[in-house]
Amino acid sequence: MNEKTIDVLAIGNAIVDVITDADDAFLDRHAMAKGSMRLIDADEADRLYADMGPGRELSGGSAANTVAGLAALGLRTAFVGQLGDDELGQIFAHDIRSLGVDFRTPPRADAGPTARCLILVTADAQRTMNTFLGAAQKLEKAAIDPAAVAGARIVYLEGYLWDPEQPRAAMEAAIDVARSAGTKVAFTLSDGFVVERHRADFLRLIDDRKIDILFANEHEFLHLAQATELLPAINDFAVRVPTLVVTRSEHGALACSGEERANVPAEPIARLVDTTGAGDLFAAGFLAGQARGKSLEDSLRLGAIAASEVIQHYGARPELDLAALAGPLLQ
Amino acid sequence: MNEKTIDVLAIGNAIVDVITDADDAFLDRHAMAKGSMRLIDADEADRLYADMGPGRELSGGSAANTVAGLAALGLRTAFVGQLGDDELGQIFAHDIRSLGVDFRTPPRADAGPTARCLILVTADAQRTMNTFLGAAQKLEKAAIDPAAVAGARIVYLEGYLWDPEQPRAAMEAAIDVARSAGTKVAFTLSDGFVVERHRADFLRLIDDRKIDILFANEHEFLHLAQATELLPAINDFAVRVPTLVVTRSEHGALACSGEERANVPAEPIARLVDTTGAGDLFAAGFLAGQARGKSLEDSLRLGAIAASEVIQHYGARPELDLAALAGPLLQ
Repeated sequence: MNEKTIDVLAIGNAIVDVITDADDAFLDRHAMAKGSMRLIDADEADRLYADMGPGRELSGGSAANTVAGLAALGLRTAFVGQLGDDELGQIFAHDIRSLGVDFRTPPRADAGPTARCLILVTADAQRTMNTFLGAAQKLEKAAIDPAAVAGARIVYLEGYLWDPEQPRAAMEAAIDVARSAGTKVAFTLSDGFVVERHRADFLRLIDDRKIDILFANEHEFLHLAQATELLPAINDFAVRVPTLVVTRSEHGALACSGEERANVPAEPIARLVDTTGAGDLFAAGFLAGQARGKSLEDSLRLGAIAASEVIQHYGARPELDLAALAGPLLQ
Repeated sequence: MNEKTIDVLAIGNAIVDVITDADDAFLDRHAMAKGSMRLIDADEADRLYADMGPGRELSGGSAANTVAGLAALGLRTAFVGQLGDDELGQIFAHDIRSLGVDFRTPPRADAGPTARCLILVTADAQRTMNTFLGAAQKLEKAAIDPAAVAGARIVYLEGYLWDPEQPRAAMEAAIDVARSAGTKVAFTLSDGFVVERHRADFLRLIDDRKIDILFANEHEFLHLAQATELLPAINDFAVRVPTLVVTRSEHGALACSGEERANVPAEPIARLVDTTGAGDLFAAGFLAGQARGKSLEDSLRLGAIAASEVIQHYGARPELDLAALAGPLLQ
């Protein structure tokens, strides 16, 4: 087992979010499924952007948001993701490094423009995401430093990155390094449509015992398990993965690890603004707890605290001092 | 007198804001005067950005914020400002056009990068601005379409643009067109240091009767008038400019127009977040009232309403429906 100098190394899409308010009619006109993520090409990104209102540009990307949360909680983190050689790429790199995240993936001019996610936030605070992957889908196996993976307690992977071929191969390589280095592998299913596209692959990873911690929301989990009732499905599935975490929005979250079960309510909030990043920050809180050897229940509570902060403002990364919010739970 | 198809045409710096939280120690370390704006060059912009936390990128620019507010209030607006041929420029152009503002100034590759303003917001909600003017200072007289100026009821100019030579000449040309076309000229002093640098020029414009509506905050006005006591200074100065508007932050605002005097308190707010754009949006509300023929007092009240919205969130442009907030005042 290698010496662990990093708590969590995440591999994910390096994306800048472009966030705007929209109404349901806008989603209907563009045939979007509210609350989901879809991939769009450069032309569609241009058309959609032209039709959108004024944007707020903020660094995003699912796993990148999670490491931003982990860094805010005081953990040692690293991120791997592909940027284009452009201004949005400079913004992403600046933002993640300014949080103290070790980010070394060089931008590539041959990879196309930096990924952007056009996010429509409706009055019910739901976010509907349209991702132009651009350079992010060009992440190569060569960008993964085996020593960095081996030097991490946990490597965290996002299901979104399973769509394009090259990053998928890079993640599989990272899993193999992790397996032989005593690095735990955490994986998020990311989105119901992602599960639909890659269900067989994800089940293979799980049944090959390549995933130690699996994150899903209720909807994604039921898709994966091909079930309709949550609790029996979780009981059936719990034997297949060492740690299973299922988030349920305002109904809280639950986790199973071996025989252990835990269940927490959602944190109370003053004002729901934008749910973008809720799952990412939940994962941050939970992983922080696990990396620090906390109980399953305390890890869930940390997840709920981190998620509650991010849904009370626009953008998918924390604005308040998460470590202070976590307080004694993480000490 | 030409037919007026536009209510307000503004000429200003086309800037993307990069907003981050900072503490007083950060301002001290970088020798910044809290609440003011200073100009920085490309190297200093790079150094400061590297030292800053993660940013929110939002379109800004003082006069551009004002037209964004006017558009949100339902007025017909146009904007003139120089962008570079880059991604930040595309963001600025998208955002302002998506609000319905007529913006036609072509980006120029030979003008350098699009201007950015690095804004540090402290816990007291004060904003301290560091502007790299880039392409904005290359605005040429040729970018001003005399027919567009003549077709506006009001042309609105920002004092910030007085610093660089080319835009200053462009604004002087616009004033001359306005004078002969029956277009009113509104001017904001922008910043105390700007007044310090250009006091003689501003007084010359005023005494040559080239300014119909002068906006200043208390601090800027006292600098201009070289006075220490506000009310006597306003009384003395009121004879020199047709309409004088002085904003006083939480103490409200007052205006003089000929013999008429009006005075309004600040609007009550729930939560002060970021004062960026307060003066710009005050000007938007006031000009909307004037363009619609409202009284001096109602115009001030519209200014106070628009300013109160923008200081309750990050960013210098309205997020809520300003026309709804203004309600019967603007009907």
